[in-house]
Amino acid sequence: MATDDQERCRCCFLKWMNLQQQELSELHQALTLQASNKNSENCLRQLAEKCIKHYQDYVNNRSQLARNDVSAFFAPAWCSNWENSLLWIAGCRPSQYIRLVYALNGIEIDAQLHEFLQGTRTGNLGELSPEQFHLIDILQSKTIRAEEKLTTQMASLQEDVADQPMVAITKGLSKIGEMNGELDRALDKHEQGMVGALEEADSLRLSTLKELMDILTSRQAVDFLTAAKKLQLCVHEWGKTRDERHGRGKLMIT
Amino acid sequence: MATDDQERCRCCFLKWMNLQQQELSELHQALTLQASNKNSENCLRQLAEKCIKHYQDYVNNRSQLARNDVSAFFAPAWCSNWENSLLWIAGCRPSQYIRLVYALNGIEIDAQLHEFLQGTRTGNLGELSPEQFHLIDILQSKTIRAEEKLTTQMASLQEDVADQPMVAITKGLSKIGEMNGELDRALDKHEQGMVGALEEADSLRLSTLKELMDILTSRQAVDFLTAAKKLQLCVHEWGKTRDERHGRGKLMIT
Repeated sequence: MATDDQERCRCCFLKWMNLQQQELSELHQALTLQASNKNSENCLRQLAEKCIKHYQDYVNNRSQLARNDVSAFFAPAWCSNWENSLLWIAGCRPSQYIRLVYALNGIEIDAQLHEFLQGTRTGNLGELSPEQFHLIDILQSKTIRAEEKLTTQMASLQEDVADQPMVAITKGLSKIGEMNGELDRALDKHEQGMVGALEEADSLRLSTLKELMDILTSRQAVDFLTAAKKLQLCVHEWGKTRDERHGRGKLMIT
Repeated sequence: MATDDQERCRCCFLKWMNLQQQELSELHQALTLQASNKNSENCLRQLAEKCIKHYQDYVNNRSQLARNDVSAFFAPAWCSNWENSLLWIAGCRPSQYIRLVYALNGIEIDAQLHEFLQGTRTGNLGELSPEQFHLIDILQSKTIRAEEKLTTQMASLQEDVADQPMVAITKGLSKIGEMNGELDRALDKHEQGMVGALEEADSLRLSTLKELMDILTSRQAVDFLTAAKKLQLCVHEWGKTRDERHGRGKLMIT
């Protein structure tokens, strides 16, 4: 059973990335239809909800897999070095979602200044209302506070390695790297703590995304999800390209 | 040149781990000689200083290598998953050194209660003076504050990926993962920021260690370095053993 843990985690990620590609096509198609008035607000909302439901499923799968091999998620062998350097507790920072909304808002405003001045409305992320801005600001503060709390929790877990019982066990070993039952129990307990941190971080990522969906209109939600998925897929590909340049390509597990 | 970056980073780490093994033997030997009064305080101090000098050289090497391929240090392919899950900005948390001093102090006190009651003094980490405790407490607070500052800086670097110019570039791409000059420049700039973070973190690790050496007596410094190196080598070996159980052994680069 255990020998396949790493492979199962990798498959879970690859399936997720394939799904992101599919969802991105669906989101693009929905926006095209909406632009020609062939798609209702309701259809866009359902599509956004389907994406969030898929994310919930992915989080549940990760949680199951992490119970067998949590460390694999903290610096995955199936991701590029660059992607791994961006990780915060085995995933993206939830506050990145909010930074992305603000960035998209700026881009849309610049791009549509002409239409805007003419009074044409597209209803996308360039048109956040003052009320929406206010709610997003509140969500941002709340998310950063929650992130900081989890960062501290993670720091404490990392520091535990230089504390009891690990230090006393190490001191008593006659040979470097020797394992015994007491040590295995200590490492298992440490990994349980890591599973807890991963689950809480995933839960924060999901809840931040859900709250953001509630603040945005259906059109804005689909706009946001389109950009977020495209960025995620691009970061994965760019990282692979840059790794290849540094000679990691031949070593990376693809 | 570039195709060997990854290999050079790996060699730098492997040489460092071999040196740790050698230093650990020297430290053990020095403690044995000291116990039979064949080694002076001065010899112990020189040995501790040599270890710190080697660490300084390692930090300088990493800094040079990171300028070519910084991402490789954030989740090294030559470390186990478990080791990578313990990383804070491409290394250990500097506050771990202080946690280790306190842990060793507790262990020594327990172990030497008998000698202690009889008035025998060994001068090791079980015998920190009130003045030393005070100085270590101050160092701990200072280190944690510096760590928090760097953690925030790192968070900001990670969030930048979901902001300008990366988002605008992504939005304009017709194909996922497409690269262009503008993107390469943005990624290069991001990596420069990562190099800065790695250098600051390494500098904090080194300065914390140096300040700790100044607070401890020569015998205590050697005691501490012995335990720290043994722990580091053990964590590396335990991680490999645990990875093998999860089926990563065959995939890991050793």
